[in-house]
Amino acid sequence: MSYRTEADTFGDIKVPANAYWGAQTQRSYENFAIGGVAERMPLDLIKAFAVLKKAAALVNLEYGLDTKVSDAIVQAADEVIAGKLDDNFPLCVFQTGSGTQSHMNVNEVLSNRAIEILGGKIGSKEPVHPNDHVNMSQSSNDSFPTAMHIAAVIQVQQKLLPAMKMLHDALDVKAKEFSDIIKIGRTHLQDATPLTLGQEFSGYVQQVAFGIERVESSLGHLYNLAQGGTAVGTGLNTRKGFDVKVAAKIAELTGYPFKTADNKFEALACNDALVEAHGALNVFAVSLMKIANDIRFLGSGPRCGLGELSLPENEPGSSIMPGKVNPTQCEALTMICTQVFGNNTTITVAGSNGHFELNVFKPIIIKDYLQSVQILADGCVSFTKHCVVGIKANRANIDKIMKESLMLVTSLNSKIGYDKAAKCAKKAHAEGTTLKESALSLGYLTSEQFDEWVDPSKMIYPS
Amino acid sequence: MSYRTEADTFGDIKVPANAYWGAQTQRSYENFAIGGVAERMPLDLIKAFAVLKKAAALVNLEYGLDTKVSDAIVQAADEVIAGKLDDNFPLCVFQTGSGTQSHMNVNEVLSNRAIEILGGKIGSKEPVHPNDHVNMSQSSNDSFPTAMHIAAVIQVQQKLLPAMKMLHDALDVKAKEFSDIIKIGRTHLQDATPLTLGQEFSGYVQQVAFGIERVESSLGHLYNLAQGGTAVGTGLNTRKGFDVKVAAKIAELTGYPFKTADNKFEALACNDALVEAHGALNVFAVSLMKIANDIRFLGSGPRCGLGELSLPENEPGSSIMPGKVNPTQCEALTMICTQVFGNNTTITVAGSNGHFELNVFKPIIIKDYLQSVQILADGCVSFTKHCVVGIKANRANIDKIMKESLMLVTSLNSKIGYDKAAKCAKKAHAEGTTLKESALSLGYLTSEQFDEWVDPSKMIYPS
Amino acid sequence: MSYRTEADTFGDIKVPANAYWGAQTQRSYENFAIGGVAERMPLDLIKAFAVLKKAAALVNLEYGLDTKVSDAIVQAADEVIAGKLDDNFPLCVFQTGSGTQSHMNVNEVLSNRAIEILGGKIGSKEPVHPNDHVNMSQSSNDSFPTAMHIAAVIQVQQKLLPAMKMLHDALDVKAKEFSDIIKIGRTHLQDATPLTLGQEFSGYVQQVAFGIERVESSLGHLYNLAQGGTAVGTGLNTRKGFDVKVAAKIAELTGYPFKTADNKFEALACNDALVEAHGALNVFAVSLMKIANDIRFLGSGPRCGLGELSLPENEPGSSIMPGKVNPTQCEALTMICTQVFGNNTTITVAGSNGHFELNVFKPIIIKDYLQSVQILADGCVSFTKHCVVGIKANRANIDKIMKESLMLVTSLNSKIGYDKAAKCAKKAHAEGTTLKESALSLGYLTSEQFDEWVDPSKMIYPS
Amino acid sequence: MSYRTEADTFGDIKVPANAYWGAQTQRSYENFAIGGVAERMPLDLIKAFAVLKKAAALVNLEYGLDTKVSDAIVQAADEVIAGKLDDNFPLCVFQTGSGTQSHMNVNEVLSNRAIEILGGKIGSKEPVHPNDHVNMSQSSNDSFPTAMHIAAVIQVQQKLLPAMKMLHDALDVKAKEFSDIIKIGRTHLQDATPLTLGQEFSGYVQQVAFGIERVESSLGHLYNLAQGGTAVGTGLNTRKGFDVKVAAKIAELTGYPFKTADNKFEALACNDALVEAHGALNVFAVSLMKIANDIRFLGSGPRCGLGELSLPENEPGSSIMPGKVNPTQCEALTMICTQVFGNNTTITVAGSNGHFELNVFKPIIIKDYLQSVQILADGCVSFTKHCVVGIKANRANIDKIMKESLMLVTSLNSKIGYDKAAKCAKKAHAEGTTLKESALSLGYLTSEQFDEWVDPSKMIYPS
Repeated sequence: MSYRTEADTFGDIKVPANAYWGAQTQRSYENFAIGGVAERMPLDLIKAFAVLKKAAALVNLEYGLDTKVSDAIVQAADEVIAGKLDDNFPLCVFQTGSGTQSHMNVNEVLSNRAIEILGGKIGSKEPVHPNDHVNMSQSSNDSFPTAMHIAAVIQVQQKLLPAMKMLHDALDVKAKEFSDIIKIGRTHLQDATPLTLGQEFSGYVQQVAFGIERVESSLGHLYNLAQGGTAVGTGLNTRKGFDVKVAAKIAELTGYPFKTADNKFEALACNDALVEAHGALNVFAVSLMKIANDIRFLGSGPRCGLGELSLPENEPGSSIMPGKVNPTQCEALTMICTQVFGNNTTITVAGSNGHFELNVFKPIIIKDYLQSVQILADGCVSFTKHCVVGIKANRANIDKIMKESLMLVTSLNSKIGYDKAAKCAKKAHAEGTTLKESALSLGYLTSEQFDEWVDPSKMIYPS
Repeated sequence: MSYRTEADTFGDIKVPANAYWGAQTQRSYENFAIGGVAERMPLDLIKAFAVLKKAAALVNLEYGLDTKVSDAIVQAADEVIAGKLDDNFPLCVFQTGSGTQSHMNVNEVLSNRAIEILGGKIGSKEPVHPNDHVNMSQSSNDSFPTAMHIAAVIQVQQKLLPAMKMLHDALDVKAKEFSDIIKIGRTHLQDATPLTLGQEFSGYVQQVAFGIERVESSLGHLYNLAQGGTAVGTGLNTRKGFDVKVAAKIAELTGYPFKTADNKFEALACNDALVEAHGALNVFAVSLMKIANDIRFLGSGPRCGLGELSLPENEPGSSIMPGKVNPTQCEALTMICTQVFGNNTTITVAGSNGHFELNVFKPIIIKDYLQSVQILADGCVSFTKHCVVGIKANRANIDKIMKESLMLVTSLNSKIGYDKAAKCAKKAHAEGTTLKESALSLGYLTSEQFDEWVDPSKMIYPS
Repeated sequence: MSYRTEADTFGDIKVPANAYWGAQTQRSYENFAIGGVAERMPLDLIKAFAVLKKAAALVNLEYGLDTKVSDAIVQAADEVIAGKLDDNFPLCVFQTGSGTQSHMNVNEVLSNRAIEILGGKIGSKEPVHPNDHVNMSQSSNDSFPTAMHIAAVIQVQQKLLPAMKMLHDALDVKAKEFSDIIKIGRTHLQDATPLTLGQEFSGYVQQVAFGIERVESSLGHLYNLAQGGTAVGTGLNTRKGFDVKVAAKIAELTGYPFKTADNKFEALACNDALVEAHGALNVFAVSLMKIANDIRFLGSGPRCGLGELSLPENEPGSSIMPGKVNPTQCEALTMICTQVFGNNTTITVAGSNGHFELNVFKPIIIKDYLQSVQILADGCVSFTKHCVVGIKANRANIDKIMKESLMLVTSLNSKIGYDKAAKCAKKAHAEGTTLKESALSLGYLTSEQFDEWVDPSKMIYPS
Repeated sequence: MSYRTEADTFGDIKVPANAYWGAQTQRSYENFAIGGVAERMPLDLIKAFAVLKKAAALVNLEYGLDTKVSDAIVQAADEVIAGKLDDNFPLCVFQTGSGTQSHMNVNEVLSNRAIEILGGKIGSKEPVHPNDHVNMSQSSNDSFPTAMHIAAVIQVQQKLLPAMKMLHDALDVKAKEFSDIIKIGRTHLQDATPLTLGQEFSGYVQQVAFGIERVESSLGHLYNLAQGGTAVGTGLNTRKGFDVKVAAKIAELTGYPFKTADNKFEALACNDALVEAHGALNVFAVSLMKIANDIRFLGSGPRCGLGELSLPENEPGSSIMPGKVNPTQCEALTMICTQVFGNNTTITVAGSNGHFELNVFKPIIIKDYLQSVQILADGCVSFTKHCVVGIKANRANIDKIMKESLMLVTSLNSKIGYDKAAKCAKKAHAEGTTLKESALSLGYLTSEQFDEWVDPSKMIYPS
């Protein structure tokens, strides 16, 4: 590997010859060797930074930035957004808690790539300086939380919400498909009064619909951007109006309603907006855990479980035992949920431990937030495609076990009286017979009467 | 102690003679001896149940309930709401997960007290039956979650939000009072550029203001009531329209915009709305942790800490050492926050573990939710009254340490050039002098120039 | 209510006339009105304090404490331990984070009761002074963590471990009782190869046995006592040897191997030992959640669930539907587990937020620890008495569904070859018949051969 | 990209031509597209699997496995252990909860590489079959938890414990280096009685020493291996004695005291041992959070903080403001701690949600456990190298602020009486002077007397 020598105020440092990053990135890379590739600062955050830097370069035209320099920064930023420079962001999340080092990584890569575009020499800081030009009127302390919000909004809007809607719609199709299947209800895991399988699924549909509402609503405070607060929230070293203009430009570039935060002190000193937003993900994970558990229990069997649903078989379950379909998509999804619960703890603690003008747990907060978004989104897609759409109701079995149940006895109360009805049920329970067999053997009614009076289809709505 | 004998389908059981509760309550009391008085079902939930039972008794007039019976139930419910029967709810939270036993406790107490009002014999179930009359058209499975939502909304509206607003306003008074005090900013705990103490406090004000927004917004889904879903969500054994009417009556009685849930299956099978609502409490606890930590650090000293604030002295700190004021209100508040974080974990796990038609972690969910509301509300009031309103700024010390700091050097850049400015700072740092002493000794400027150029009051806004 | 007037360095304050507590307790009571009776400092901690104060009074005889004073303190402490003065500890947990106020509450009550014993005037501090005598050579900062450890050890030894052993033994009885019942195994909730019900329960027995090991092992660091560190760990204002002697006396009084902590700075500044100890409770809750979930699922039904176990019926389930036995003890136990998980979060965060010479989250740490101990202990007893001992195996149903399962086909591989065996299973699955019916209809073997070859009892151990 | 076609019971599937993995891996890869490279099954687990497969191949020689086949498997396994085949394990963690798919990935890679070694055709399953040979006598359900334990033990022993010891020793060096520096103590963040900086650091040393004890002790149950339990714990399809022999072989290969689990049902059905082991990591993270917080607060400044320590400057803090050294290593470490806290929640929930014969949250449990180990280990090394070893005490400032404090007044009690001492302190506090100035101005003693009597060096141990 060949190197070039760069310098910062600490002196010389060797940087890989083909890297766009500079001295400060390299120094952080060496000082924070924590956790390998899985712990890198998420690229989604880097790309959000590029959006911010592009917006700043455009706004700074109004404040004297040279057009040529601005154009080059914009072009470089577009390349980062397009993923062309992904290898140039090697820093890990466990670095300075302000994210300054990844911020300088972005500034260095953009400046060097812009220099290259303009025919200059990488590392020369001429004619595009990472601080003076790329970072003009900005500070890490306002830029990093701004990039956090941009990344969060983009990922939620473009990945998570579409995936949630896909799941919602697939469950809704099933709720409708199953609307005529009457089945045993279960409370406390015990046989209860009947409902339709469609009604049961409609509960899941409602959970996901509310989940979508919650996630959308959680974006509200994320649209507030810290940019313009600079080091401590006062806006020192930036220009009047820069905050409003850069937020408007980001809104224009992304299509989302970003605006400058009314209070920059809050916007730097805490990350409550992301704690709030992850809370919505946490509720959604709670919902998914319930749904996935229900589906795998309803699909348990094939012979010795509940056996109401058949889940699609995506992999060999057992080479010899047909019908052994492991609910692997449910398992993946429930594991995702536990990770989201854990991330909620992490983000809660990290969010609560800021001090004075700056919360310095920013990298871990955004990393865990984006991880939750990503795995929930991918999990919804995978679960929908490979499980929900292929769920089949085992109509015969559903009908059979419902009819074997004793809860239908309640419909006889008004026909033969409470005491006789109870006697039917007790005899059936003791002897292991059906309710009908028991009722007939007791001579309380005829077979025709039983079939007419004991009608689950009349037990699924108020009277 | 004297007893009377009551009976349920399990046979006879002795009930304390002076108790309004009946056999089912007594049986649960004996079967779940878990945790003592601190683990009792919260009275706030019991009172919400009484609101529901009152509303049902009024609505059931339309469905044939005898006026005399209805009146007696309403009177009994009003007594429960007024706290006159508090001793009659002895059951612990760790019971059946549907809360059925506490629900029956309410039915039994109301029926017995109504019987008493009507001149009947307690325990006779005549003329007011706990099931047939008090529980008419209702089931535990829809009543318990309805009472959960009523209790949650009332406590948030009447206890928490006023307490949050009290804290907000007190902080806002301080932010204004401190608006002219320029102080050192701190990022990474290190000296940074200045801001006003009022700006710093304005960040706290904003956090609490957003917190109020979040908590208010979290009530949205709590206004949806499960009542009318009965055992599994279908509404079997209730009457058409009962759900809408009872919700309207509850809205009328409480003054809050309750309405019947669109989907009763979701409303029974999960408690996502409370998971969501507690998420808002969790964010607020995150905010409070930050604020309380800042305040106690800024008040640290009196000699060897930051010493920027003086907190009110509420208890003897040290009998001999004046100025040792322990930040006890901050300590209480931060402990409250940790309990809320823990409750968030509990509620998340409990919310995610429901199965099929009913989540059976309801009692722990509402207990922990109401605990968080109570201690946050009381904590805000205590912290406001005994700490925030009495905070004093140590103006002299704030000014002194700010002026001793080296960060002011940045204002000299444009006057004497970057290199000379840096030299001033380095010399001051090495020799432990003030920046002014250093600058003067280097002969770069006059005392008058220093005082004119190095002006923190020009460093607290954008240029 | 009548009052007496007491004074501290803050001036006069009214104290209820019949209270043993004094001015400092009263002041705290008024300054921290947070959360009501459920949030009071646990009496188990108060009693542990009394053990400490008794030990100190005895050891201080060697350092000049008057015998009469010592005797009176010891007598008063014994009364606190016996629960005779329970009403005298009204302070809530959310107070100063060192627990100083509850510590002074103990000192004040013991001194006033000792004064009374000696014929003096309550409130006079003569002849037994709360600080000079009851607190001789002690400080809140070493006394509170000492009392925390004493309380934790006593509660675990006397409540939790016996309850865990009771559960362990009851499960072990069941494992042996069920050792001959062969049943279907379930992995991924899907039918798998068989095992005995006794083997399945032996897994629970092992979990609880390891749980006992873990909890016992977690006491190790709790035996280290902070006493003797005084305000910051140096031992200023105490006497050489006091630390060793008081720990020995506490060991003698309690019968547990307490000893003085080697490093008092660690013992005050952090509460890692309690974080560790609660970690063991957390694992046990994880185990209980699994066990209780299994038992309620295996007991699900009576007709439409797994139906392998019958749980004891402790309350009316349904008045008309026999066999509907809600697994209420499992529900209570799993709710307990979720509270323990939450407490683990609380204690983790509280334990991590100490600063410098003192962790000031001590009250919430011990409150939540003791709550977990209490509810786990009570939960084990309740679950054992009201559920485990009464569990019955539904032998007929267990046998029936196992025989209907298709997994037994694996035993035919070596007899008729893999391909034919698979064909049997596929045909049975497709047609909904038993494996035997399918195999006979295919003509691959005789009924006798099937019964000889397909023998689940040979499938429950290695070959 | 070129492909080869492989087949499993589901039919044909295209596999990348140069991949060693086969059809089942490929199918999982396509069915679980969740989360990208950061969510891959950790290579440390894969390598532990290779250790297991090597041990099994050696033990299976005794049970009839062909020597040539065994040798080839062993060689292939050694290559996996050496990291030569890292690219061949593309599956993500969010897959089937038994980890079967990654287990088959290992079997397929080892068989294909062994086939290649023996000159066969990749994908032919001849002469080394992934199931019949590589997986001989094994099942996913016992193999995956076995690999989890092996990976956990190896990573803790080889990465974490050495890193913890490195940190311990570095802190201990500092504790000794600082043993003569007397400083102000701080409780409640308020000035308290003095101690030495060495004593303060000795508390950290003790925390880490206990942490090492806890982590070592947590390995106890991890030495128990599930191998030999096969599908449900009974050992069906394995051979008597295989479990003991394979555990012994793994112990021999690794040098750690692995042994077969006494109860295989527990070993499959739950992962309590890993929940327990992560609990020890959680306590260590609690300790690190405290230590890192203390160090960054003690290093705060340079002018407006506590200023007792100077932390090494590893990156440019501020280009113009000398002495602004951000405590970046503390920030990275505290972020690591929050991730560990979150992982503890994840593992707790995942561990508690197993059902019947198998916990199906295994992949997320081991992933998060190994992540915690890795980042804690790397974090300790980074913090030690880049922070602890370079910490310098600011002796002059420490001495100065201690002497300015008022707490030294307590040493005058016995010389001039409590009342006069208090007057000195009050006057100093009111006028902002030193205690000495105040005492002299009051005429209570001479300068010489003050210097003799007020001696902090006599205040750091018991009398």
